Amino acid sequence: MNLKPEKYLRYLYLPNLFGTDRTKEILHVNPTVMAERIEPDEAVTFVYNYDVDSIEERQLKNPTECFRYKDSSRISWINIDGLRKVDVEAICAHYNVHSLIAEDILSMNQRPKMDEVEGVLYCLLNMLYYNEQKKTVEIEQISLVLGTNFVISFQEDASRDVFNPLRHKLKINRSQIRQRSADYLLYAMLDLIVDNYFLVMEKLGEQIELVEEEVVRSSNKRSLAKINQLRKELIVLKRNIAPVRDLVNGIIRSESELLNDRTTKYFKDVYDHIIQAHDLSENYRDIMVSMQDLYINNVNLKMNEVMKVMAIVTCLLAPATVIGGIFGMNFDKIPYLHNQYGFWIAVSIMLVIPIWMIFAFRKRGWF
Amino acid sequence: MNLKPEKYLRYLYLPNLFGTDRTKEILHVNPTVMAERIEPDEAVTFVYNYDVDSIEERQLKNPTECFRYKDSSRISWINIDGLRKVDVEAICAHYNVHSLIAEDILSMNQRPKMDEVEGVLYCLLNMLYYNEQKKTVEIEQISLVLGTNFVISFQEDASRDVFNPLRHKLKINRSQIRQRSADYLLYAMLDLIVDNYFLVMEKLGEQIELVEEEVVRSSNKRSLAKINQLRKELIVLKRNIAPVRDLVNGIIRSESELLNDRTTKYFKDVYDHIIQAHDLSENYRDIMVSMQDLYINNVNLKMNEVMKVMAIVTCLLAPATVIGGIFGMNFDKIPYLHNQYGFWIAVSIMLVIPIWMIFAFRKRGWF
Amino acid sequence: MNLKPEKYLRYLYLPNLFGTDRTKEILHVNPTVMAERIEPDEAVTFVYNYDVDSIEERQLKNPTECFRYKDSSRISWINIDGLRKVDVEAICAHYNVHSLIAEDILSMNQRPKMDEVEGVLYCLLNMLYYNEQKKTVEIEQISLVLGTNFVISFQEDASRDVFNPLRHKLKINRSQIRQRSADYLLYAMLDLIVDNYFLVMEKLGEQIELVEEEVVRSSNKRSLAKINQLRKELIVLKRNIAPVRDLVNGIIRSESELLNDRTTKYFKDVYDHIIQAHDLSENYRDIMVSMQDLYINNVNLKMNEVMKVMAIVTCLLAPATVIGGIFGMNFDKIPYLHNQYGFWIAVSIMLVIPIWMIFAFRKRGWF
Amino acid sequence: MNLKPEKYLRYLYLPNLFGTDRTKEILHVNPTVMAERIEPDEAVTFVYNYDVDSIEERQLKNPTECFRYKDSSRISWINIDGLRKVDVEAICAHYNVHSLIAEDILSMNQRPKMDEVEGVLYCLLNMLYYNEQKKTVEIEQISLVLGTNFVISFQEDASRDVFNPLRHKLKINRSQIRQRSADYLLYAMLDLIVDNYFLVMEKLGEQIELVEEEVVRSSNKRSLAKINQLRKELIVLKRNIAPVRDLVNGIIRSESELLNDRTTKYFKDVYDHIIQAHDLSENYRDIMVSMQDLYINNVNLKMNEVMKVMAIVTCLLAPATVIGGIFGMNFDKIPYLHNQYGFWIAVSIMLVIPIWMIFAFRKRGWF
Amino acid sequence: MNLKPEKYLRYLYLPNLFGTDRTKEILHVNPTVMAERIEPDEAVTFVYNYDVDSIEERQLKNPTECFRYKDSSRISWINIDGLRKVDVEAICAHYNVHSLIAEDILSMNQRPKMDEVEGVLYCLLNMLYYNEQKKTVEIEQISLVLGTNFVISFQEDASRDVFNPLRHKLKINRSQIRQRSADYLLYAMLDLIVDNYFLVMEKLGEQIELVEEEVVRSSNKRSLAKINQLRKELIVLKRNIAPVRDLVNGIIRSESELLNDRTTKYFKDVYDHIIQAHDLSENYRDIMVSMQDLYINNVNLKMNEVMKVMAIVTCLLAPATVIGGIFGMNFDKIPYLHNQYGFWIAVSIMLVIPIWMIFAFRKRGWF
Repeated sequence: MNLKPEKYLRYLYLPNLFGTDRTKEILHVNPTVMAERIEPDEAVTFVYNYDVDSIEERQLKNPTECFRYKDSSRISWINIDGLRKVDVEAICAHYNVHSLIAEDILSMNQRPKMDEVEGVLYCLLNMLYYNEQKKTVEIEQISLVLGTNFVISFQEDASRDVFNPLRHKLKINRSQIRQRSADYLLYAMLDLIVDNYFLVMEKLGEQIELVEEEVVRSSNKRSLAKINQLRKELIVLKRNIAPVRDLVNGIIRSESELLNDRTTKYFKDVYDHIIQAHDLSENYRDIMVSMQDLYINNVNLKMNEVMKVMAIVTCLLAPATVIGGIFGMNFDKIPYLHNQYGFWIAVSIMLVIPIWMIFAFRKRGWF
Repeated sequence: MNLKPEKYLRYLYLPNLFGTDRTKEILHVNPTVMAERIEPDEAVTFVYNYDVDSIEERQLKNPTECFRYKDSSRISWINIDGLRKVDVEAICAHYNVHSLIAEDILSMNQRPKMDEVEGVLYCLLNMLYYNEQKKTVEIEQISLVLGTNFVISFQEDASRDVFNPLRHKLKINRSQIRQRSADYLLYAMLDLIVDNYFLVMEKLGEQIELVEEEVVRSSNKRSLAKINQLRKELIVLKRNIAPVRDLVNGIIRSESELLNDRTTKYFKDVYDHIIQAHDLSENYRDIMVSMQDLYINNVNLKMNEVMKVMAIVTCLLAPATVIGGIFGMNFDKIPYLHNQYGFWIAVSIMLVIPIWMIFAFRKRGWF
Repeated sequence: MNLKPEKYLRYLYLPNLFGTDRTKEILHVNPTVMAERIEPDEAVTFVYNYDVDSIEERQLKNPTECFRYKDSSRISWINIDGLRKVDVEAICAHYNVHSLIAEDILSMNQRPKMDEVEGVLYCLLNMLYYNEQKKTVEIEQISLVLGTNFVISFQEDASRDVFNPLRHKLKINRSQIRQRSADYLLYAMLDLIVDNYFLVMEKLGEQIELVEEEVVRSSNKRSLAKINQLRKELIVLKRNIAPVRDLVNGIIRSESELLNDRTTKYFKDVYDHIIQAHDLSENYRDIMVSMQDLYINNVNLKMNEVMKVMAIVTCLLAPATVIGGIFGMNFDKIPYLHNQYGFWIAVSIMLVIPIWMIFAFRKRGWF
Repeated sequence: MNLKPEKYLRYLYLPNLFGTDRTKEILHVNPTVMAERIEPDEAVTFVYNYDVDSIEERQLKNPTECFRYKDSSRISWINIDGLRKVDVEAICAHYNVHSLIAEDILSMNQRPKMDEVEGVLYCLLNMLYYNEQKKTVEIEQISLVLGTNFVISFQEDASRDVFNPLRHKLKINRSQIRQRSADYLLYAMLDLIVDNYFLVMEKLGEQIELVEEEVVRSSNKRSLAKINQLRKELIVLKRNIAPVRDLVNGIIRSESELLNDRTTKYFKDVYDHIIQAHDLSENYRDIMVSMQDLYINNVNLKMNEVMKVMAIVTCLLAPATVIGGIFGMNFDKIPYLHNQYGFWIAVSIMLVIPIWMIFAFRKRGWF
Repeated sequence: MNLKPEKYLRYLYLPNLFGTDRTKEILHVNPTVMAERIEPDEAVTFVYNYDVDSIEERQLKNPTECFRYKDSSRISWINIDGLRKVDVEAICAHYNVHSLIAEDILSMNQRPKMDEVEGVLYCLLNMLYYNEQKKTVEIEQISLVLGTNFVISFQEDASRDVFNPLRHKLKINRSQIRQRSADYLLYAMLDLIVDNYFLVMEKLGEQIELVEEEVVRSSNKRSLAKINQLRKELIVLKRNIAPVRDLVNGIIRSESELLNDRTTKYFKDVYDHIIQAHDLSENYRDIMVSMQDLYINNVNLKMNEVMKVMAIVTCLLAPATVIGGIFGMNFDKIPYLHNQYGFWIAVSIMLVIPIWMIFAFRKRGWF
């Protein structure tokens, strides 16, 4: 009847189980404060400078080395991993990117958006990753700046991105991307970012299935905590996917000279995907609601089952207690008390009544 | 008081009962991964080449045999069952269909959509079937490509489709379809696909009625599982019907030269139907919500009934226990103990009190 | 403690009580299947042919007799009760009504809609009746075809419609309707149909009040069933009212030459009414939700009251049982056992403790 | 244990408590039936005929006396309290107001709306009052007809309106209203009507606070009834406020010559207020939802507290009963039975076990 | 078993705990009543009069001293802290601001809005502060009037505002703000106001986390009260943020000559932030809903745990009571009564049955 040690412990790590820290991360969004991000010691810069026939791939020691690609006759993809104020501002200044955009690149927790300022098209959105250990959706902000002959991408984290398939395709001579203008490069990057959303959703989907199985098997506090965690991750997901719809739609409707008519249908393709990602995240939400209902129903059913059996057992034994009490009274004259079979008659009645009750209860479908 | 074997087993097949596998199928939507579909060994190709006066119906050994219908002066319906990359790309190349469309045809889990690319109108949507065994809504992706004098349809599965009434009508000389242009053929196909949605919904509707009856009769874990399953199927339904509205609306508003003004009113008819299908699926959802409420209320009512009777029985017997205890005490002087009728008086009190309680409870409407 | 016969019976007619049949009727909507309607043996046709000065009212033996009114210089209202394929097609052919409209007239379970096809304006909607016996909303499909000098109305059922006030007004010489063109006749008919919706809603409103009173007085399974039934009828109501908004709006925005500018303000009046009917049906839904919450709260309150009293009674008697047990033990030395007043002391304690408990409980407001 | 008289009575006035009559009033909306309103014996007519310099204020014996103001060179406000068919039709006929508007003026339960018909701008809306006794929102329909040099207002009830501040301002020489055209008079009236909505909402807000306090203190059936009543009043509120938004917006967007450009910014001010009233009514709804949740939680908490204590008391006494039973058995050899301290040992155990249980329960935080 | 004093007290301060006073504050919104605000004894006026090269900063003794800046060739920011009718009207009159705007400046509880009247652009919105003591969101109304060469800001409270960073920047020679026109000053002020919303939301977010932790650890009445309070603050938040979206959007879409094209992109930046603030407040709401669900589930789980243990203990002891009763009966012949080990056999059975029950219950997973 004593709580086992692990039960006490359970109460200690409950807030952890319910992910209240995660709530903090999700709610502490303040796009207006600049200084939060810890600047990396150095930024890693890669440049792909290509045309149909040839490609130059270089890692730059200093981000400012990319300045000389500005007037290249070929298309350049300049990718900067690690956001340092000094680099970003230098590059933006050199490439004639408005200072407000430089601010946006350096800001944190921005809502995905798209902007056309002074001959440059700017996209800010987040790459999503699924952290298998913490079971959380992680975000990495990425800024894409499209100019006439370049795309500059600014990432927060050098250790990962979603562009490897693109790097692979770039190296293939005469691949479609090598034959197209810079806006196609932008499309290719958006496409990879959005496609990666589906991978993240797939992982979340697996979690949902696992939690659903757990809820079905045993609806306990742990599964409640998991449902709660998943609901939070779905908020993160929705927050990152919904505005990207507007972003891609903004590109499609844009009349910028940077965007080729031939490329529009590719952006429409991305748009189809982001719409579908959004629909899917709605489906996730629906399934989560179903699951929560299921959880509550299961907890109730289980509790009801226990309470019912307890009540029935207590109830079945009550008549026996009464009969025992009757023949335990100290009256001088109690019938059957001196009868040879009196005891057995009493005990039989003690048995017969509950049995009759069981039958009566069963007939009403009570257990 | 022991669980019967089937009860233990019940716990084993619970996840199955609640259809967690189905959740996996519904959530694992990733339109961006290409390679999932297992290519069939061969594609079955049928061609109907017709004008008002005559019709040619042929099964082709090789999909590429259909190339020669491109320049036919008559209208061709080329139906390919089974999606093989090599065939689809060859046909698209021959018929001047953009490579992005070829990709869409081969992709899986796409959201229904409509596109006009370079002189061709492309519709991607799903045919729905109701699997009576599994009680699930199955989908088969279908791509329709409308050109000036042809409609090419790509289906996944050779064993079934919804076009038999169309095949029948085509063979009738001077039937309306034989007198019209290719866009009317596209209309006829969309019409059959949408009409089939109603058949699937009818089957789902039957399931909903059955579950409702089950919920009304006996609200148990099994009916909860069925409600849960139906909610998932409604998600599938909604996911497939809602975007088809946009698809058909896109055709109506399109200014493509492929679409005859005279045909518009037919597409409006399809539009009316798909709107109604959508409304109906909303009604289904409303009824499901009602049903779930009903389920919860019924479980509670049933539980309440049981608990109430148990509590009342226990409560009614409690006074008798007390009286038994009183006269079972070993005091030297207890009134009536030596009275001849003492025992009967005590037993009478034991009976009278619960009877009085029953009357008092009934007056309050407690049972 | 035995279930009375009517209780057993109650379980038998439960599905009936909960109206699962009605669910079938509501869900089995399939506008695409043609052959369901049983054709009546004969169609009843009435014609009103009028101008400002005179009116001719005739019942026709054969629907085709109405052909001759096509070129009448006066306005004709041709009302056909009973939909027979042969009649409908003949009339449509004669009056140059498109074959798609003929199909719609004959179809069932259509969503209300409005169409302009080739010089004719077509409205399809439902007249609603409230069936007092079954407590259901019944629908009768009506098709209205407006031409330059005629309105043809097709009804399903000869036994009832909502047009009697119109017939009355038509017979009044120099009444407004007699001075106006055919579109005013269409307005008058739509107005009567929409006005009748309010009558049906009034009846439903009365049901809602009755059920609310029942829920307040005694929240039992029967009132739950009634709530459930009403929710279904509200679905039927909404399904028939919501699309009529679009229908009337379509007429107002139409630029058809059939519609006189002077008549527009009358259609706006109908529009105001249908909007209000729609708002009202939303109010109904809100009240139903309130009522369902009330039901659940009442069931809980009632159950809580019962359980509380039972628990309290059981609890109050428990100390007496213990005291009885204490003095019933067979120890050699038990204090007060041989005291003259021992028994009375024990019984007093048995009474004092529960009385003290009652006071303590009351102070906490527990009963 | 007997119900006290007031408890019986309580069950009798329950439907009253829950305001089912009010439901009837709210649901019985039928704008299409004309004859419901009881015509007053006489209509009270007031006329204010003014220009910048002078004002004439008269009470007319007969509404038709107002005819002569039609061609006045000054602005007239004709206010008719009491709707009599004959008066309304006479006035409308004289002032060239369309007969449909006359119908609307006489109708009941109309949705607020605005109409421009033949050189006249017509507004129909409701003045709201809060009935302190019944705690209900009462409505009085008002019709405002704006012509070039007049505003005619038709009210139902002579005993009250919201225009006293306006009457006061009119009498002030050279007040702004005296310097403006008739549309400013219309604005002033709408402004007062909308401002009065806030007063009504304030009263409702006070009710909500009172009910909230009551729910927090003691969540009983009475507070449930009050929540239910308030929800109904909020429906009335929303029904009257939401359409007024469209009404005022309609005036702002109107291009009627009756409306002066200079007055538009005043109507925009009314629009801001009505939007805010609408937002506020949404806030009310949110607070009501919170309160209902609170109610349910409180009822549960209270019930749980009672049941828990009862269950604990019963549970704590159960071991004593068992021990009493053990030593009350009639076996020949029972240890300690003949021991001098046997009784005290048994009683001690009876006390020790519950005390130990209390500690164990407390450690788990159960009470 | 007695309530401790603090428990009684708890009931006394419950309405306080649940913040019913706060409900009063939130619901008592009436923008139409003028006289509520207590006028301060004096208004504090600060003027910043600047151009690129120089700045003059002065505190004025009398608000009317600011009149002379009207015709300054430099840009003026006139900030009035404390709203006194006489000052506001005098300043508005001097600066040609319409009297309706003067009324709005003096009004209370206005919905944020933006207006262009006669050559002046007017913004009314609220600055939000978080009151750490009361845990409430406080509002201070601010009015911004933009003219060609001035911005006048009217604040309610002299003791605080959010403009300190702006004052700092103004004093920096050749800072961007010093080089721009007056509309940039307006932007800078809106930007600071909106940025401050995020700070307030951050504080609220912290409260939400704290409450979530409390709910997870111990779901009691206090945490319920806190959830309820937070829901009210979220209403305040939403009420102040949502209309600011329209306000900023109105500025962006305005074609006023006061707004420079170059400044538009800055207002777009504010718009991005306010959209994000709105999204975030939606996220807050979602998390609050999750938390309330969690609360209810936790209360139920806790209650269930207690009731289950109580029921199980009671149930486990019931058989022992029966056995005690059986062998306590006074029959002459009871088996084992005279057996030497009879007592021990009986006691063993009393122990064996509950132990067997425990095993049986565990196998079903009941505890």
